[in-house]
Amino acid sequence: MIQSFLVSANMSDRLAKRTERISPFYVMELLRRAKQLETDDRDVIHMEIGEPDFPTPQLIIDAGIEHIQTGNVKYTAAAGLPELREKIAGFYRQRYGIAVSAERIFVTPGASGAFLLALGISVNPGEQLLLTDPCYPCNSNFIRLFDGEAGLIPVDAATGYQLTAELIKQHWTPATKGAVIASPSNPAGTLIDREVLKQTIAAVNALDGCFYSDEIYHGLVYGGNACSAIEFSDNVFVINSFSKYFGMTGWRIGWLIVPDKFVEAAEKLAQNIFIATSTHSQYAALAAFDQRTLAELELRRAEFEARRNFLYENLLRLGFDIPVKPDGAFYMYANCSGFTDDSYQFAMDFLETEAVAITPGKDFGVNDASHYIRFAYTTSIDRIALAMQRLERFINKG
Amino acid sequence: MIQSFLVSANMSDRLAKRTERISPFYVMELLRRAKQLETDDRDVIHMEIGEPDFPTPQLIIDAGIEHIQTGNVKYTAAAGLPELREKIAGFYRQRYGIAVSAERIFVTPGASGAFLLALGISVNPGEQLLLTDPCYPCNSNFIRLFDGEAGLIPVDAATGYQLTAELIKQHWTPATKGAVIASPSNPAGTLIDREVLKQTIAAVNALDGCFYSDEIYHGLVYGGNACSAIEFSDNVFVINSFSKYFGMTGWRIGWLIVPDKFVEAAEKLAQNIFIATSTHSQYAALAAFDQRTLAELELRRAEFEARRNFLYENLLRLGFDIPVKPDGAFYMYANCSGFTDDSYQFAMDFLETEAVAITPGKDFGVNDASHYIRFAYTTSIDRIALAMQRLERFINKG
Repeated sequence: MIQSFLVSANMSDRLAKRTERISPFYVMELLRRAKQLETDDRDVIHMEIGEPDFPTPQLIIDAGIEHIQTGNVKYTAAAGLPELREKIAGFYRQRYGIAVSAERIFVTPGASGAFLLALGISVNPGEQLLLTDPCYPCNSNFIRLFDGEAGLIPVDAATGYQLTAELIKQHWTPATKGAVIASPSNPAGTLIDREVLKQTIAAVNALDGCFYSDEIYHGLVYGGNACSAIEFSDNVFVINSFSKYFGMTGWRIGWLIVPDKFVEAAEKLAQNIFIATSTHSQYAALAAFDQRTLAELELRRAEFEARRNFLYENLLRLGFDIPVKPDGAFYMYANCSGFTDDSYQFAMDFLETEAVAITPGKDFGVNDASHYIRFAYTTSIDRIALAMQRLERFINKG
Repeated sequence: MIQSFLVSANMSDRLAKRTERISPFYVMELLRRAKQLETDDRDVIHMEIGEPDFPTPQLIIDAGIEHIQTGNVKYTAAAGLPELREKIAGFYRQRYGIAVSAERIFVTPGASGAFLLALGISVNPGEQLLLTDPCYPCNSNFIRLFDGEAGLIPVDAATGYQLTAELIKQHWTPATKGAVIASPSNPAGTLIDREVLKQTIAAVNALDGCFYSDEIYHGLVYGGNACSAIEFSDNVFVINSFSKYFGMTGWRIGWLIVPDKFVEAAEKLAQNIFIATSTHSQYAALAAFDQRTLAELELRRAEFEARRNFLYENLLRLGFDIPVKPDGAFYMYANCSGFTDDSYQFAMDFLETEAVAITPGKDFGVNDASHYIRFAYTTSIDRIALAMQRLERFINKG
């Protein structure tokens, strides 16, 4: 039957409601302006980008090309190449001393695909997951994609920008389905303490919730140790990626570890929503765990550490406050309240006058976001030094 | 606060409800058995696979490799490389005589990503989309992924296995949000008639619904013309892919055209759920529209047409009924009620005794599915001929 009352609606009403709740990236506006400036021959220094500036390691490139040259770039199994899943399992044995069955490992189109799969099989509309504020915006937006609620818990230096068992118990409601942590975190670059992670997982398990651990910056750690959630429980989702540490951003390949009871559902959903991850990316990733690749990545890690130290010292010298010295990823979340109460405007003005792009705090939440900016050290020390000169000039002018 | 009543639930209750509504692929069971047979040195003929047996065209391979060799496999813009979006727009100008703005074209991780994006921005929980039964199961499952309802309309030879304006008006309810068509269709391989498509779109627009046109088999057409929904309205979603016609299955790259009013939401969602499509696949696809590639694809099309004719004649000769001679894709949906009332068992037995894999009807819906099997002609005529010999022996034994 035709419902005439529907005919009066217009196309904009046809948008799914979730689209209103999914936030855009404010940094995109800044990027558009940066591009215009570059068109005008301004030398823009990019410190907004969450992507390593190093090329993909050569062995990975070679393995990818070797596969493509066969011409046989066909679908793989939905969960990924069996030999890649085995290699990832081997990586957990070797690096974390943990046995994870390859059956629980799903190769996905980036960590994006891993989140999509993990939340698709576990979050119902109206259910809530707890996360930190600040956090990487996509993590909340994936929850909203499935019409769930992002329960943002304000965190700060007191907990190293991480959740704790106490915070989880305190914020748990009947609608809460689980909690998401990220270590190293984005934007703060902080690690969750081993004991805190253990207790946090225990708290979520005691509440019969789902625990999601975003470990995409593992490997890029400059102090302390990054523990995997899988060290403490089999009852967790682990999201990881070849993008950051392994330098494979554009290849779009990551992985997800699911609890045993979710394997069947993950298999079914992966078949339906991905068919499979890019085949050549999977063959390329087979070379990611080669000792020669890992040795090269270790040199890059050292370079990131040097940049971190350099940037940290300079930002402190210029009067920024960095409540926790970051131990991982390639980000620094700096308090700029000595200079402004509007970090977005600060970022826009800094770009306009000095041609340095940084990310405003409001891309990561609402918790004191107007006093924070994120610097990414995904460019060389020389470029960071130049950015610091420009920053010094900018704040002295201001 | 801790809700003790939650603690009693166990992990399997933690599965999202949608996972129960998303059907597995029954053919997977068959594939597992086929693999076992192959391990035992049986020569399995694969006629279940929805993937061209041709390699990726050489120019596409070369373009992909050329990009990878730069080492610079970085994220692209979320909507895709601007030059690729322009090339796709150019393809619509050239092949369909239609001007589509590149801003409305989103490059996606396969048609899977295109469906994900299209339904993510347009389907709310509880809303229904109309589709044919039989249809490709993922199309219904994407609706269920967003907690919508797949409103399956039984179709048969009378409408060429396609929806019509009449069927849509007849099945429209207050919960209906739109309709999905696929032409060439899967499993029937039928084309929607030009005039019927036009009227169908008009009917959906009059109901202020969303119209989704799955055009992933365009190019693989052996009679008649495949029209694009975009020829009749700007108010449609068009899903397409480089997988089938362009021979790029494992590269996981497709595209989506959205109505103007959905562009902003699509941009936002693509950023969040994909970041971007694989960069090397995008660079490779730049060579897909090269005249030399298209000439090669035309030869392949002719080969598929010869296979279609050969398979069609043989199946009729053996006593199968094919209600509509398929005009596209690489599938034949054959009525096997002369031999069985259980096409799944028929397929399993045929595999077991004669080592030929075909897909049972129940993978495509419930509408008389037990009397149908799908043959994919994604293997050479020699192999199809051998499969027909085995089929003849099998039904004569039965």
